[in-house]
Amino acid sequence: MKFVTYQYDGKERAGLLKEDFILDLYEYSNGQLPSDLLSILENYEEYEGKIAELTGEGKSLSSVKLVAPLPKPTSIRDFYAFEEHVKTSRGRRGLDMIPEWYEVPVFYFTNHNAVIGPDDSVYIPSNCHRMDFELEIACIIGKSGKNISIDEADDYILGYTIMNDWSARDIQAHEMKVGLGPSKGKDFATSLGPIIVTKDELEPFRTDKSYDLQMTASVNGKVISNGNFSTIYYSFAQLIAHASKDTMIYPGDVIGSGTVGTGCILELGEETHRWLQDGDVVELTITELGSLRNTVRK
Amino acid sequence: MKFVTYQYDGKERAGLLKEDFILDLYEYSNGQLPSDLLSILENYEEYEGKIAELTGEGKSLSSVKLVAPLPKPTSIRDFYAFEEHVKTSRGRRGLDMIPEWYEVPVFYFTNHNAVIGPDDSVYIPSNCHRMDFELEIACIIGKSGKNISIDEADDYILGYTIMNDWSARDIQAHEMKVGLGPSKGKDFATSLGPIIVTKDELEPFRTDKSYDLQMTASVNGKVISNGNFSTIYYSFAQLIAHASKDTMIYPGDVIGSGTVGTGCILELGEETHRWLQDGDVVELTITELGSLRNTVRK
Repeated sequence: MKFVTYQYDGKERAGLLKEDFILDLYEYSNGQLPSDLLSILENYEEYEGKIAELTGEGKSLSSVKLVAPLPKPTSIRDFYAFEEHVKTSRGRRGLDMIPEWYEVPVFYFTNHNAVIGPDDSVYIPSNCHRMDFELEIACIIGKSGKNISIDEADDYILGYTIMNDWSARDIQAHEMKVGLGPSKGKDFATSLGPIIVTKDELEPFRTDKSYDLQMTASVNGKVISNGNFSTIYYSFAQLIAHASKDTMIYPGDVIGSGTVGTGCILELGEETHRWLQDGDVVELTITELGSLRNTVRK
Repeated sequence: MKFVTYQYDGKERAGLLKEDFILDLYEYSNGQLPSDLLSILENYEEYEGKIAELTGEGKSLSSVKLVAPLPKPTSIRDFYAFEEHVKTSRGRRGLDMIPEWYEVPVFYFTNHNAVIGPDDSVYIPSNCHRMDFELEIACIIGKSGKNISIDEADDYILGYTIMNDWSARDIQAHEMKVGLGPSKGKDFATSLGPIIVTKDELEPFRTDKSYDLQMTASVNGKVISNGNFSTIYYSFAQLIAHASKDTMIYPGDVIGSGTVGTGCILELGEETHRWLQDGDVVELTITELGSLRNTVRK
């Protein structure tokens, strides 16, 4: 199944995407399903059957404005799970790989209250002269749990979406010297969307550790990043097992993969692309998950 | 005013604390006020007058179980704003002060879904052999805003409470080498409470930059930390101005000060106190804000 959230009568409503039309979950269930996706996730086992039965003509996708499929995630943990990204980014600064990176998957919490959606503008923070994107894939947690084993972790995943972890590199580099990780360099915006694709739909792309999904990023129509989800070092099952160790995770929690190899300007270098400027259109595309496009604004 | 949240008929309800009794906000307003504090904060200007008018006998404080006054904060940003803590903790490891610390106040987001309250048990994470507390003061944001100036920032503060940022030092030290800041070393629990005291009540203690409030921590009845809120280097007005730069802050957001000088075992050293163990009772006390007590459990 594919879930979206869209604007309808000035409100945000959850919908099921079928081909190129949307079935409003509340309306097409005659009010038996909640109108927002977070409430659906909180009782997904109860609602799943009803969602699968929905039929109708729906609204055409092109006639509505999509917002982030989960406009208010319960939290966002962003990991650092692609080896190539970490290795290359450090290598550019003359730094060796961190041995601890191979011992433990590490995340930081980013601002879950600053989520933007497809086609929204993203504003360059004041005093930022090195605006960057990050091409990531995120999983959406579909049920709560604690101390989840790697073998069981897949059961906690509802599905996947595209994530752009916008980064103000000069602000981030300065504040990270204090040792608490990224702070204002990241909390101004994170894009999610355009759709959440449930994990069963990705089965044909299964690999040993993840899925064979191509991940690309373009700026103003020119592809500059080209990676694949299958190159992830820590699987999402490992990330979920780690995140849930000694703490509860909840429906609506978002877990980001970290940047795929080649997936940001910091890693590619300014010889490949200058830092982002007012008017640049950044489009992230992942096989089966669609394209997530945003315009950079001053 | 002093706000609490307490258990009532198996549910969590917001109350106004008067002397040693509690007026249930929903019940004593005949249903005109919401039953949870977050909903009150979301429309505080509308509700404030009504809250001030509440009268009655209430329930005695000793007859109810308090929980965290804000059990589900919208977010928690934790800063690092006391110079003595940063200087001493680094000095113990033979490290100089970080010049950037004086240039920008830095925070990280901690897990707002892992809040515990007064008298709750806190569980030592598995594989942690260096369990620590952190004595902090937190402000609760009472209205939304963006790009708030230092001069206006005080208007966005509803009040203050005590915060204990529980820390698994060995886990934290290992994962911080990867460079994203604290992660699993912090996300298992944060204590808040027992009460939120509105800022007007602290006026008699005003200093140039903050308030003259003594902050102590004891373990099993023995005081081992002794600091004062007035020694903070960055004021909460500066922290709020920084946090809200280019991003919205919301009612129910919590902003932690960081550890006051002497406010944790990491800083005091094991010669002052061993790491926390099963059965230890940690009690944090701040002038006017009460005492926040938790028992450490395996």
